[in-house]
Amino acid sequence: MILTKRLSIDTKGQGDVRDVTAEVGQIVADSRLEAGAATVFVVGSTAGVTTLEFESGVVADLDHAFEQIAPRRAAYEHHRRWGDDNGSSHVRAAMLGPSLTIPFEERRLLLGTWQQIVVAEFDTGARRRELVVQVIGE
Amino acid sequence: MILTKRLSIDTKGQGDVRDVTAEVGQIVADSRLEAGAATVFVVGSTAGVTTLEFESGVVADLDHAFEQIAPRRAAYEHHRRWGDDNGSSHVRAAMLGPSLTIPFEERRLLLGTWQQIVVAEFDTGARRRELVVQVIGE
Amino acid sequence: MILTKRLSIDTKGQGDVRDVTAEVGQIVADSRLEAGAATVFVVGSTAGVTTLEFESGVVADLDHAFEQIAPRRAAYEHHRRWGDDNGSSHVRAAMLGPSLTIPFEERRLLLGTWQQIVVAEFDTGARRRELVVQVIGE
Repeated sequence: MILTKRLSIDTKGQGDVRDVTAEVGQIVADSRLEAGAATVFVVGSTAGVTTLEFESGVVADLDHAFEQIAPRRAAYEHHRRWGDDNGSSHVRAAMLGPSLTIPFEERRLLLGTWQQIVVAEFDTGARRRELVVQVIGE
Repeated sequence: MILTKRLSIDTKGQGDVRDVTAEVGQIVADSRLEAGAATVFVVGSTAGVTTLEFESGVVADLDHAFEQIAPRRAAYEHHRRWGDDNGSSHVRAAMLGPSLTIPFEERRLLLGTWQQIVVAEFDTGARRRELVVQVIGE
Repeated sequence: MILTKRLSIDTKGQGDVRDVTAEVGQIVADSRLEAGAATVFVVGSTAGVTTLEFESGVVADLDHAFEQIAPRRAAYEHHRRWGDDNGSSHVRAAMLGPSLTIPFEERRLLLGTWQQIVVAEFDTGARRRELVVQVIGE
C-alpha cells in the first residue's frame, strides 16, 4: 500500500533548517501500515533533506561548513548567466540531495534518539517549501 | 508492483552532468502505475545521482565546488596504491551518493519545474554509464 | 512484501569505514524475493551510508576530504553549547546522509564490481552501530 501526502513549510532563507520528524511520524502513524518506509522528498532545486541532531549548534556548524564549500558571496556562473543570486543554494542543494528514505516498524520511524529528519533551506530568501512524504508498507 | 529497467548513457568524463528526467519519466508513464516511487541508481563507484536545475551555469558551479573538495590534480592514496588517476572521482562519487528516490502520482514525477534528475560523471575519462531505474507502485 | 532486519557493527571511530555488502546481499538472498530494493539506514546522527570502492586508499582519501570540510579539531558551536567533541562528526554525517536504496533482481544487488555498500563512522570514539536493512520486493 502506498500513501502520498504533502507538507508545506515556510522557511526564512539560507541556513534555516526545519525539523519535520513529528509531521512525518504522524503521517506514518495515520497510515495504519505496520512496517515499511517513508520517503521524504523536497520539491525544488535549492533545498535539501537529511537527518541530524536538531539543536542550534549543529545547525550553525552545518551552515558554516556549506559556507566553506559554496560561499554565498562568491562568483557563480549561474549568477553571470541568469542575473540570479543563489548559485550557492543550487550547489549546496545538489550536494545534499532532495530525498531520504526512513524505515518504520510498528508504525514508528526507526530513527535514533538524537536523529531528526530535517529540511535545509539553501535559497537566499524566505520560501514556502513543498515536501512530499510517501509511505510504502503493509 | 515492481518494474526494473536500465538506461545506458555515454559521458565525456569529469564534470559532465546528464539530465535523465525525460527517460525516467517515460519509464514511470509506461509502467501504467498510478502512484509510487522511482529509484534511480548508478552502477559504479565514480559517478553520482542527484537533482539540480539543469543549466550550464549550475553544472559549472557544482564542478567548481567539487574541485575545491577533491581537486583532480592532488595526491591521493588511491593513486599511490593502484597507479590510478581517479582518486578525486571516488571521493566525489562517495560524497554525492549513487541513488535517489522520487515519488510520483498520476503517472508523473513530483519534481519542481526547475528540478531535473541528473547523473554526474566524476571519472577522469569518457564512460558508458549504466543506470538502474526501478519503479515501485500501485 | 517487506522484510526489516538489523545489523550491529562495532566501529573504531572517525575515519573507520565498514563494508556491509555481503551482509546486505545475504538478507536479500534470504528474503526469497526475486526483485525489489534494499534500503540501508544507519541509526544515529554521527555516521553515514554510501557506496565506494572499498580499498584502504579510497577510504583514506575520503577521510582526508571530510577533514578539509569539517576538521576534527576546529571550533564548533555544538562543542560550545554541549561540551561535546564531535561537531565534525555531526556535520560530516548530515552531509553524507544516513540512507541508501539499492535495487536488486534475481535476488542479487545491482552493484558494480568495484562498488561496495559502506557505513562511514564519523564519531570521535568507538561505537556500536545499528543498521536497519529493509527489503521491499516481490
